[in-house]
Amino acid sequence: MILNTIGDRLRLTTFGESHGVAIGGVLDGFPSRFKIDFERVSEELSARAPQMEGETMRREDDEVEWLSGIMDGVTLGTPIAFVVRNKKHEPGDYKELEHVYRPSHADLSYQQRYGIRDYRGGGRASGRETVARVIAGALALQWLETQGVSIKVDIVEAGEVSHGDSIGGKVRCLVNGVKAGIGNPVFGKIHAELASAVLSIPACHGFEYGSGLSLPGSEYNDQMRMENGRIKYLSNNSGGVLGGITTGEDIYFTAVFKPTPSIQIPQQTINDKGENVTITIKGRHDRSVVRRASVVVRSMVALTIMNYYL
Amino acid sequence: MILNTIGDRLRLTTFGESHGVAIGGVLDGFPSRFKIDFERVSEELSARAPQMEGETMRREDDEVEWLSGIMDGVTLGTPIAFVVRNKKHEPGDYKELEHVYRPSHADLSYQQRYGIRDYRGGGRASGRETVARVIAGALALQWLETQGVSIKVDIVEAGEVSHGDSIGGKVRCLVNGVKAGIGNPVFGKIHAELASAVLSIPACHGFEYGSGLSLPGSEYNDQMRMENGRIKYLSNNSGGVLGGITTGEDIYFTAVFKPTPSIQIPQQTINDKGENVTITIKGRHDRSVVRRASVVVRSMVALTIMNYYL
Amino acid sequence: MILNTIGDRLRLTTFGESHGVAIGGVLDGFPSRFKIDFERVSEELSARAPQMEGETMRREDDEVEWLSGIMDGVTLGTPIAFVVRNKKHEPGDYKELEHVYRPSHADLSYQQRYGIRDYRGGGRASGRETVARVIAGALALQWLETQGVSIKVDIVEAGEVSHGDSIGGKVRCLVNGVKAGIGNPVFGKIHAELASAVLSIPACHGFEYGSGLSLPGSEYNDQMRMENGRIKYLSNNSGGVLGGITTGEDIYFTAVFKPTPSIQIPQQTINDKGENVTITIKGRHDRSVVRRASVVVRSMVALTIMNYYL
Amino acid sequence: MILNTIGDRLRLTTFGESHGVAIGGVLDGFPSRFKIDFERVSEELSARAPQMEGETMRREDDEVEWLSGIMDGVTLGTPIAFVVRNKKHEPGDYKELEHVYRPSHADLSYQQRYGIRDYRGGGRASGRETVARVIAGALALQWLETQGVSIKVDIVEAGEVSHGDSIGGKVRCLVNGVKAGIGNPVFGKIHAELASAVLSIPACHGFEYGSGLSLPGSEYNDQMRMENGRIKYLSNNSGGVLGGITTGEDIYFTAVFKPTPSIQIPQQTINDKGENVTITIKGRHDRSVVRRASVVVRSMVALTIMNYYL
Repeated sequence: MILNTIGDRLRLTTFGESHGVAIGGVLDGFPSRFKIDFERVSEELSARAPQMEGETMRREDDEVEWLSGIMDGVTLGTPIAFVVRNKKHEPGDYKELEHVYRPSHADLSYQQRYGIRDYRGGGRASGRETVARVIAGALALQWLETQGVSIKVDIVEAGEVSHGDSIGGKVRCLVNGVKAGIGNPVFGKIHAELASAVLSIPACHGFEYGSGLSLPGSEYNDQMRMENGRIKYLSNNSGGVLGGITTGEDIYFTAVFKPTPSIQIPQQTINDKGENVTITIKGRHDRSVVRRASVVVRSMVALTIMNYYL
Repeated sequence: MILNTIGDRLRLTTFGESHGVAIGGVLDGFPSRFKIDFERVSEELSARAPQMEGETMRREDDEVEWLSGIMDGVTLGTPIAFVVRNKKHEPGDYKELEHVYRPSHADLSYQQRYGIRDYRGGGRASGRETVARVIAGALALQWLETQGVSIKVDIVEAGEVSHGDSIGGKVRCLVNGVKAGIGNPVFGKIHAELASAVLSIPACHGFEYGSGLSLPGSEYNDQMRMENGRIKYLSNNSGGVLGGITTGEDIYFTAVFKPTPSIQIPQQTINDKGENVTITIKGRHDRSVVRRASVVVRSMVALTIMNYYL
Repeated sequence: MILNTIGDRLRLTTFGESHGVAIGGVLDGFPSRFKIDFERVSEELSARAPQMEGETMRREDDEVEWLSGIMDGVTLGTPIAFVVRNKKHEPGDYKELEHVYRPSHADLSYQQRYGIRDYRGGGRASGRETVARVIAGALALQWLETQGVSIKVDIVEAGEVSHGDSIGGKVRCLVNGVKAGIGNPVFGKIHAELASAVLSIPACHGFEYGSGLSLPGSEYNDQMRMENGRIKYLSNNSGGVLGGITTGEDIYFTAVFKPTPSIQIPQQTINDKGENVTITIKGRHDRSVVRRASVVVRSMVALTIMNYYL
Repeated sequence: MILNTIGDRLRLTTFGESHGVAIGGVLDGFPSRFKIDFERVSEELSARAPQMEGETMRREDDEVEWLSGIMDGVTLGTPIAFVVRNKKHEPGDYKELEHVYRPSHADLSYQQRYGIRDYRGGGRASGRETVARVIAGALALQWLETQGVSIKVDIVEAGEVSHGDSIGGKVRCLVNGVKAGIGNPVFGKIHAELASAVLSIPACHGFEYGSGLSLPGSEYNDQMRMENGRIKYLSNNSGGVLGGITTGEDIYFTAVFKPTPSIQIPQQTINDKGENVTITIKGRHDRSVVRRASVVVRSMVALTIMNYYL
């Protein structure tokens, strides 16, 4: 059963709890002799970090320590392991959440799954786990650039909300430069793998690729013509994928995210003694995860596409 | 790389081209000593078969031959292999499609992927491949019933279209009775696996689970109370899944399907000589795949959920 | 958990019980546009069939039916499914073994694993399952020949035994023409995969590659020299593999097989009522499986090596 | 393709080069709520460390840092990551090996596989990688003990050799207490997985389970009787496995190791300029790896058996 690993040729395993010793990952299958631009990794991490008013204020000036797989800045073809240390926390900081299950968090479901959970800041289910994905994704992004592939993400909807409440939104992603003929029928379709990768991001609830799905076939279908000896699609409602295989046109999709479950408004819930309680979550949290999630979307797409290229 | 196999504990491999000798599958990991209701398999196959005016008229009175894994109607725990023979076709029936790539079919992408394709009726990319999924799914459905799990599908939107054209639509699926605590962080989340399985169905473009995603967190969050010693969720916007793990509430999602690409209206396209041609697809085809796809959705969900139970 | 599938890029799934409807397999990941020599498949099947006095006399004039993945004798890149029908048996033929566990067969262990077993001729545990491996292996052998790789097997030891008894032996295998640099550290070493594949053959108990293992390092080590601009190893005790990666020298190993457990001599055993009984196995059986197993060794090696090439 | 990960339910990924920053691993799938005895981990690490005259003198007073998956000494069910820092080395220490390929090491094969290699002390191919296996194995050993399973290893042959030279040997392993009915046909046989796991240990060349393979079947076969209501095998030549499934008897096998390739005797080899050179390896190295390898054998067996139990 798949647990904390994604990919088969390029394989990322992540580990770490939000308030444990460290968050990290092992990226296996990355090609050898690739010169890594560590500055690019920092840029992606910064893009994921909290910046604007209304988003999580917890400072994450994370520093990556590279443990293996790289010699003199160049990949060896062996597993690339990396860690980011978590900041020290006072033991009492999260003590009050030890016995309470926050609504629409994974507190209770983890408890039911494992009979135990790291209650400190969400533990393994925290969005902080995505730090490892962004680091690995930043390597994949660099490699894909050498293949002419670029990945853009935009926030297409977010909405307003009063202070203390939260809101969801959508991330739109466009992948340019993927060559035709990538992907596998029938259970390895590239859009299905993209969906699985994107829906593994905390708070993600939906994935839809292409456009015009409510049109009649006569308007929806992507007709073709030869132009100057090259295939030209007259439209790209297919979103760059037909039969699970790339057409060479842009791949694009929309991912839908739910509102941040942490709100500073009293909510009804239960505790681990089976009592009804009211909870008001303290601390400063993201009003919306969408901007930060968009960086993780880019990472997951990069890892997924690169997995097909290898 | 995943190709024609899905699942790891319960593992389905399908094979067969639309107009080849047979469509079939191998279902591995199915528990031993389970008495199969073959009538139920026929019912699911019939539900998938064309029935109403406006849908594919090709008769599919398919008969399943069971090749292994079953003795006296009872499973042995060994691989269950099955085949359905394809009807004989006149060699000329699809001859005119040998050299032309139909718009928004996988004709060209398969050609680019493999350098060859079975042009007869879509070959491996045909919806006919899903016969194997429905047979395997019918076994999973029976097994899940013994666990108290039921899966319902509805067509929530289809639309009207003039004759010769086609239309897409949505399938809504509801899974009742899945116990709490099923699923795996962080890359084995149950909703991500469901999405991947459903998006592997031909023509499927989108997956979204839960509801109320545009609400503020204060309205979206599923608050909880204890009632008569049991956990009661005051709402189920989470769609039965938190952190990729089931809550015990109903799992529900919507899958979006594109319009059938086969339309009886002239379209511009190209042939394998790189020439511009106009194509008008003959024969009778589904105006919408949604009703038939809904049966396949149920099968894929059954296989996916059962994979987590084992 | 791996069950009835081997390989990841080239993936063989086998199915079928000895006296069920059919034995068969699905070979996924085989490259497209490869012209199959069906005569070669028959040759390998014949090599595996019983021929000499003292071996199983059961006639296996098996005919392969190809179900998918091939059009006009050329592979499509889609799963290649095939079946071989089992001969019809009188229901009574194996009735007396329904309730008895034969010594050193898998009768009892299957019963303990599954709570049920197909008692007819060994069911899934029968050597007949290897028919599917030999068919798939014959395709891999053909493909490898186009890469300059050849696989030879010899019986290096068999021994004499009086009539009614049985004997084990060894199969020696030599693979010529594998290029240097194939294999993966640290858990995908090519010799470990070969061992696993060969030890999956019924009755196989041992695997050892290379030679001179009891020599001191000074005599064992394969020293090197450049000769005419090419690397020349002064010896090949390493058996063509260093660090799990090929050196370009011949890969060779020895596989050890136990004596056929079916003997026509009375043995003590138990039945499914927990009673002590004496059993004398009837019918004509292989006195040694070694010759026939050697063909299966070649198949498994071909599938394993090809998996690394893809 | 399998690279640096082994197991599917219990899944170990190792990383690290011999003289890089650290050696480590991620153990995924380990059950939650298990109290770890860290002292036992140290004991296994000490057993693997160099102790006797004639073995590697490099001091490995390794300290394990646990990065995730454990809270208050108890497992969370999430990935358990751990690292051991490598000692600092002077850059010049291994400089002379930068351009030379040591005979019967993986220097050249890694170079051919990756086009680059970490020449410092063998890099990824060094026996030092097994530190990660022993740490993970120590957790598996503890868990198996709660199931009544114990694993013993002995060195059954080593031999004498003059100073500066090296020698191989055998490790015999006996697993007691594994219940009957564990294992999977036909490509998940427990002995095949054990072989693959053991042959992944550096320098391991052979695996053979059971005994009496050259006996006639009449003497080899393990006959059975009921005694006091329990199944009693009259012998255990099968080594505790029939048809790839455990019988409940002791599992035992012998693993064969080649002589340590590092010897202090001049050898002919080549360098990366394609020149013939003579090399004399300096430093103190294991005369035989067998004793230390035996600890790694125990670890790999523990991980493999536990994988079947989950």
